[in-house]
Amino acid sequence: MANFSKLTARTDVKIALAASAALSAWYVRNSFKTKGKSSDGQLSTLSPEERIQYMIKEKNKKGPKAQVDARFFAELKALWKIMVPGLWTKEAGYMALIAFSLISRSMCDLWLIQHTTLIEGSIISMNKKEFVRLLTQFFTAMPLISLVNNILKWSIGEMKLNIRTNLTMHLYENYMKGFTYYQVTNLDNRISNADQLLTTDVEKFCETVVDLYSNISKPMLDIGIYLYRLTMNLGATTPGIMMAYLFLSGVLLTHLRKPTARLTVEEQKLEGEFRYVNSRLITNSEEIAFYQGNHREQLTLLASFYKLTRHLRRFLNFRVGMGFVDNIIAKYIAITVGFFAVSRPFFVKDHNLLTTGSDNDRFKHYYTYGRMLVKMAEAIGRLVLSGRELTKLAGLTSRVTQLRVVLDEVNKGKYTRTMLDNSTANGHGNGPPMILAPGAGRIIYQDNIIKFDKVPLVTPNGDVLIKELCFEVKSGINVLVCGPNGCGKSSMFRTLGELWPVFGGALTKPPRGKLFYVPQRPYMTLGTFRDQIIYPQTREEMLRRGRSDAELTKFLDIVQLSYLSQRDGGWDAVEDWMDVLSGGEKQRVAMARLFYHEPQFAILDECTSAVSVDVEGQMYQYCREMGISLFTVSHRKSLWKHHDHFLQMDGLGGYVFGEIDGETQEFGS
Amino acid sequence: MANFSKLTARTDVKIALAASAALSAWYVRNSFKTKGKSSDGQLSTLSPEERIQYMIKEKNKKGPKAQVDARFFAELKALWKIMVPGLWTKEAGYMALIAFSLISRSMCDLWLIQHTTLIEGSIISMNKKEFVRLLTQFFTAMPLISLVNNILKWSIGEMKLNIRTNLTMHLYENYMKGFTYYQVTNLDNRISNADQLLTTDVEKFCETVVDLYSNISKPMLDIGIYLYRLTMNLGATTPGIMMAYLFLSGVLLTHLRKPTARLTVEEQKLEGEFRYVNSRLITNSEEIAFYQGNHREQLTLLASFYKLTRHLRRFLNFRVGMGFVDNIIAKYIAITVGFFAVSRPFFVKDHNLLTTGSDNDRFKHYYTYGRMLVKMAEAIGRLVLSGRELTKLAGLTSRVTQLRVVLDEVNKGKYTRTMLDNSTANGHGNGPPMILAPGAGRIIYQDNIIKFDKVPLVTPNGDVLIKELCFEVKSGINVLVCGPNGCGKSSMFRTLGELWPVFGGALTKPPRGKLFYVPQRPYMTLGTFRDQIIYPQTREEMLRRGRSDAELTKFLDIVQLSYLSQRDGGWDAVEDWMDVLSGGEKQRVAMARLFYHEPQFAILDECTSAVSVDVEGQMYQYCREMGISLFTVSHRKSLWKHHDHFLQMDGLGGYVFGEIDGETQEFGS
Repeated sequence: MANFSKLTARTDVKIALAASAALSAWYVRNSFKTKGKSSDGQLSTLSPEERIQYMIKEKNKKGPKAQVDARFFAELKALWKIMVPGLWTKEAGYMALIAFSLISRSMCDLWLIQHTTLIEGSIISMNKKEFVRLLTQFFTAMPLISLVNNILKWSIGEMKLNIRTNLTMHLYENYMKGFTYYQVTNLDNRISNADQLLTTDVEKFCETVVDLYSNISKPMLDIGIYLYRLTMNLGATTPGIMMAYLFLSGVLLTHLRKPTARLTVEEQKLEGEFRYVNSRLITNSEEIAFYQGNHREQLTLLASFYKLTRHLRRFLNFRVGMGFVDNIIAKYIAITVGFFAVSRPFFVKDHNLLTTGSDNDRFKHYYTYGRMLVKMAEAIGRLVLSGRELTKLAGLTSRVTQLRVVLDEVNKGKYTRTMLDNSTANGHGNGPPMILAPGAGRIIYQDNIIKFDKVPLVTPNGDVLIKELCFEVKSGINVLVCGPNGCGKSSMFRTLGELWPVFGGALTKPPRGKLFYVPQRPYMTLGTFRDQIIYPQTREEMLRRGRSDAELTKFLDIVQLSYLSQRDGGWDAVEDWMDVLSGGEKQRVAMARLFYHEPQFAILDECTSAVSVDVEGQMYQYCREMGISLFTVSHRKSLWKHHDHFLQMDGLGGYVFGEIDGETQEFGS
Repeated sequence: MANFSKLTARTDVKIALAASAALSAWYVRNSFKTKGKSSDGQLSTLSPEERIQYMIKEKNKKGPKAQVDARFFAELKALWKIMVPGLWTKEAGYMALIAFSLISRSMCDLWLIQHTTLIEGSIISMNKKEFVRLLTQFFTAMPLISLVNNILKWSIGEMKLNIRTNLTMHLYENYMKGFTYYQVTNLDNRISNADQLLTTDVEKFCETVVDLYSNISKPMLDIGIYLYRLTMNLGATTPGIMMAYLFLSGVLLTHLRKPTARLTVEEQKLEGEFRYVNSRLITNSEEIAFYQGNHREQLTLLASFYKLTRHLRRFLNFRVGMGFVDNIIAKYIAITVGFFAVSRPFFVKDHNLLTTGSDNDRFKHYYTYGRMLVKMAEAIGRLVLSGRELTKLAGLTSRVTQLRVVLDEVNKGKYTRTMLDNSTANGHGNGPPMILAPGAGRIIYQDNIIKFDKVPLVTPNGDVLIKELCFEVKSGINVLVCGPNGCGKSSMFRTLGELWPVFGGALTKPPRGKLFYVPQRPYMTLGTFRDQIIYPQTREEMLRRGRSDAELTKFLDIVQLSYLSQRDGGWDAVEDWMDVLSGGEKQRVAMARLFYHEPQFAILDECTSAVSVDVEGQMYQYCREMGISLFTVSHRKSLWKHHDHFLQMDGLGGYVFGEIDGETQEFGS
């Protein structure tokens, strides 16, 4: 034995280790020296960037940390019912297939352990015939084992796709109902990133939930199998020692690793601050450049960077120190304990398995059980890791659940928003504070009339812009609306469009489809050029209603855009229209859209700013002919002649509604 | 042997495998069936969401794909010189320490392989004394091995931190020089996300470069060591077979895996599209809600989602099929070849190592060399993987290099921007196109005068706003500047502030420090309350210039903000001032800042919109007293009385400069 263990090799290893240790000791001492120096330096003369102090308010604070508790399981159950709608569904089938594949895989693992040991035994005992036989068996079993692995992979992948589809469909159904998508973003402020939730978070949630299913059940299965096999063959002591050590060291390491979470959070915070300070510089670069604040801002940047690196260095030292202990406990002592545990039966004189064995038999026993022990330890490790996954799942579950709940509630008309305090909210008035509740007003549907009867204009924050708005417009009358920014023009249109709830009084208006809005920022949908004109109808709807492309061409002619339908692709051309069309073209497409839909009333919200005066005139002419009554917001003097009434708001809560005649022409520019 | 290999276990494994295979076959067939059905369905009746077509222009297209070529190595070398400035630096020391730890670790690995085999041999030969001795040795060596591991970890971490610091410092030095930070974002359009590059990308680059250093050198070292050991002891055939197989299978698998890259890119593109379609809905939610486009938009969302899931499913099937082949080639056949290679010496009758061996000796040989073979294979695998890392590094290197190059060039006054075509650019004029070059004009520094002498106002895009601006203002004269949006007010101020180059003519102005700008969006720096008033000076500069807090208090009194300096913390209070102060307070702090700096001229860019008229009046009064001449942009009528001249631009290229008297009072509101 002594001649085998290559002494030279082991000696040079030891020399290398010793040299490395000496070098590292020197380095560590050195680094502490420089550290000491700089900390002395800090006390006497701080460098300018270290004298910079700042505070950054944390934006988008996250809610209470998600925990694995009863609430989590209830939420998960509710989502589970959406994802796997029943027992006899495809999804349940995939679940069963995953379970079956997992069991098969554990069986394969077991077979591989035993068979590998047999092959090795045949090599060592130099039994060539046996070796060839066993290797051939192994070779034959290969495709089957690989098949099991990949069926598992495939069923997990399909499961993820299916539950993601189910969950996404369910959420979209609620999200796209009525104005929910608008209200979730603009009226309710519980969710600030519905798009992120619907795409990334739903995907991650489905991934995590399926992965967890296999990451928890596989190790549990493995532990059970190996524990049973080991206990049956070697008695309870060997696996017992191993389990006990793993449990104790797990508890100890978890305790020791505790500061890691805090340090990681701190690191992320500081990295975030550093990024924020950088992007802040870019956002305000013009102001800073005007002030020539580059030196001052550089100090802030460096201060933030030093704060970050100081923390990273402290964290690194902690991780290295921790890593040393961790390595010893989780790796080397674990190996020692493993050796000890698996060796025990070999040193018990009359162990029932070993009494009659040759070296070769003992060898096979040793490796079979040793490998099982390793697999068991690995399974325990994986089970512990999946605890972390569970916390992650809890976070994702609560996020997805929040989206689900908010969508449900908004659909039922309940929305939550930090309302301003009533005393400050009712802005301009001096009287007693009004009691306002969303939906307290009535909407009466009637054709060819728009009538505000004591309707207050209130923002979703509870800011009262106009206490009681009263006016009446019948079909055939065009109204010019004017007033400074924030005076309530948009609020009035949003109320009229039923995007905002009516807070009081009675609003008489035609049904939704007969009121059309042409916004300031023209919206182009994704799709063909035809889709832009007939939006929000689809081509099928258009054909069903008996409309034709020829008609659309006529509308394009009026707004002098016919060249667009004659370009490559014509009506069926698919482009990113938001990008391809110029501002003026987009506004004219929006007009053609108005002509196509022929509503009773239309709101034109500064929608002709990039259009020439003659096209604008033709549009008003055509609307008059078709009997479309218009509410126009515009500052253009040229538009006055097309209107009969005006509604002027002063931005302080007052308004005037009157007829346009010679005298009223003075305002506007 | 037959009684050992638990037949029951192997039989039930085989049953399980067979059942699993049958089930999976059924499932696969089933899924193909449904697939077939749906593809039939697609031909006859497409569902509405599948009829939606759209095109999304790819935003921020990335440049040519980074490649590992000569250019990459040149770029890396240039960056390397910044990160490791010399041979006798701290960084070079860490490099050496990493190299030394890596060698020590390979030695430790070797020792562990040999020692483990010895321990196992003592167990199997039931030699308890030897077992205890060896285990004790193992236990004693543990701390040293763990120390080596953690010195490696520590030196890698420190190396990363140090090179990140060096690189960041170097980049900031250029970034914060003069107006570079402003010009990179606003004049040059090669880099759109300097903040991201300076924070995340630099960090990732440093991480990757150091990781790659250890991930390439360690496997190469290992391969060398094990190859040498194996060849010495077993002859060249055993490692030769293994290397040959790994090489061949590597080539084959690389070829087979080729479509993965394309499919991954496609997946990311579709995921990106899906996210974009969702965020687009939110961005345009108001317009869509007004149009009641929810049904139409839902179809787009579903179309995008189906496109994505269809691709994910196809990708999954590819990955599973690929995984099957991969498993067999890279895992099972590799194991078989390994068995075959390592078994060869055992079946050669008179191999020099085995002639005199007992079972136990053969066993030790087998495991020592078998483990070396496994380690060698692993090292080869890691080396192959680091090829991928190298490509990633190439990408990061080219990004960081681009930033470095752009900063250098902008610092030298070269900036690249997609200029508009000259014929369309020179907007309003009808004459021959002007030849414009940045920096073609002259700047003459002179106190107490601002004079534009035939200076054209040109945007960085090459849009000419005013062909030749001529006017002269001496100290003591206040000028009111007015005109519609985009008429050139801001361009004039940017030219005056030297943020934009002068495109022609001559500009006479006081030196930079004597011209102050009070922007529309008041900028508050990170820091104490004092820092806000003295910005961009630091406290040290203020003290050096003999200014005192008492003076600052005086300025605060004028703008009626003295209560702010009396709050908790007083002048040294650290807050997020951008957030804490109201709009009006911010504007008044900006005024106090103006008073503190006492420039010859100041530009007030709609900076008093949230300030009461009397504070505004006091400010103008104070500026008059201190001899600060003002350029004011404002629409307030109340401000006319404080000004002597006006400069009116009409937004079409014309302007009027004149004295203010009774008659000119008519415009403004």
